[in-house]
This record gives sequence, C-alpha cells and structure tokens, in this order.
Amino acid sequence: MEFRLHERLAADTALVADWPLSRILLMNDARFPWLILVPRRAGANEVFDLDATDRVTLTDEICRAGKLLKALTGCAKINVAALGNAVPQLHVHVVARSPGDAAWPGPVWGSGQTVPYAPAARDEFLRRVVNGF
Amino acid sequence: MEFRLHERLAADTALVADWPLSRILLMNDARFPWLILVPRRAGANEVFDLDATDRVTLTDEICRAGKLLKALTGCAKINVAALGNAVPQLHVHVVARSPGDAAWPGPVWGSGQTVPYAPAARDEFLRRVVNGF
Repeated sequence: MEFRLHERLAADTALVADWPLSRILLMNDARFPWLILVPRRAGANEVFDLDATDRVTLTDEICRAGKLLKALTGCAKINVAALGNAVPQLHVHVVARSPGDAAWPGPVWGSGQTVPYAPAARDEFLRRVVNGF
Repeated sequence: MEFRLHERLAADTALVADWPLSRILLMNDARFPWLILVPRRAGANEVFDLDATDRVTLTDEICRAGKLLKALTGCAKINVAALGNAVPQLHVHVVARSPGDAAWPGPVWGSGQTVPYAPAARDEFLRRVVNGF
C-alpha cells in the first residue's frame, strides 16, 4: 500500500518539504506558527504503528521542527501532539505558542476560527521555514 | 539539580509507577482514561531538551502507555501530547479516546469540568493499569 496524504490534511496545509520520514506541512492558520509532520507510512494511525527505527526518526524530526519554530518565532513553548480524532492518518502537530496568542494557554485545536494566511504572508513564512532547515 | 515533580501535576494525579525514564501518573479525571509521563530529568521543558538516548526511551514509554490504554479500554484512538503552556515541566499526556466521550472529537485539555474519580474506582483502574504492565 502506497502512502497517500489524507485529503483533509492536504486541504488545510501547504507543502514545506519531505524529510527522511515525514512530509512536512504548514497549517494554513496565520494565528499560529504551526507545522504538521506526516510519516510517509501507509496505514499508520498511532505512533506505535511505526517500527522502532521510524519512531526514532519521527522523534528526531519532531525535535528538529520544534527547534526551528522556536528559533524563528522566539515562542515561549512548543506544543507537540498526535491526536487524530478527526483524521486518523498519523500526523504530529508542532506549534509555536506564546502568552497572548489566540488560544493561550488553551490548546489550538478547536479554538476559535481559522485565519487563512494571505498568500504573500504564507509564502514569506514558508521561505523562512525552508531557509531555517 | 534533582528531579522534582511539579506541584500542579502532583495535585492532579495519582502515582502509578516509575518506568526507566518517566514517572507514570494517572490523571484524576474519570471522564478519560489518561496517563501522564514525566521524564525524571530536572530542567527539561521541551522534548528537545532531552538527550538522544532519553528521547528514544521516552518514545518507547509513550508507545507502551498507548498500547496499554488501548488494550485496557478498547478505545478508538490514542491522543499523545506534550503541551506545557500551564505547567512548563516536560510531561506527556497519553489519553484513550472514543466517539461519544466527554470531549470527542475535540481535545481533552480545557474541555468541561474535571470529574474526580471515586476512590474505589480510581484504585480499580490503577490496579488494572499496574497489572497491565
């Protein structure tokens, strides 16, 4: 079975890059600097569906994404989560959070209304993310 | 600096066990089967504050906790998250979720009012968790 990105994730994000294990996506919500990592493993819904090697790689990629967002934004905290109640395909949110943001100190999921990026702002953030790798 | 469990985590949970890296806690909220893993590393606030060896161990312990909760509850999905907006000490939530639970499909954090366990029910769940290890 071939990996195929879930259509809901595709609709909500812009492509950043493919890392060794994960497809890296930018969530289209200008309220929060927010990456989503999707391991390119067909049928994986839970972290424990990955084999031990992939789990190590995923953890490394989570750390890489978190350090990158922290460096780019100077945020107070990185939120990391694999939820999947709505989209079962395994995907990991890595979100830069700071006091005063639109959901602080609550979680970003289900909080208020998404604010899509203006295309120029999205492309500028994508450029900064890609250059930060 | 010695590891010391954050007082808010201590107040909200019951002790389950110490695993090789993490202190395992049961969240005192009968609405959700909910474990919290706290790596016993003083000063760690982010996953990337751990060294590579500890990160592997933490990921293994997350998988162990998730598989255990899934086996005990037959839940539809495991939610895994390291947030820390309120309590900066690194801690990882591992929560069993199913359609129809008190927050489904939203996140458990900040959702409604906590329902503390009756002591007998808490002890029964603790017994099942400990026996499941």
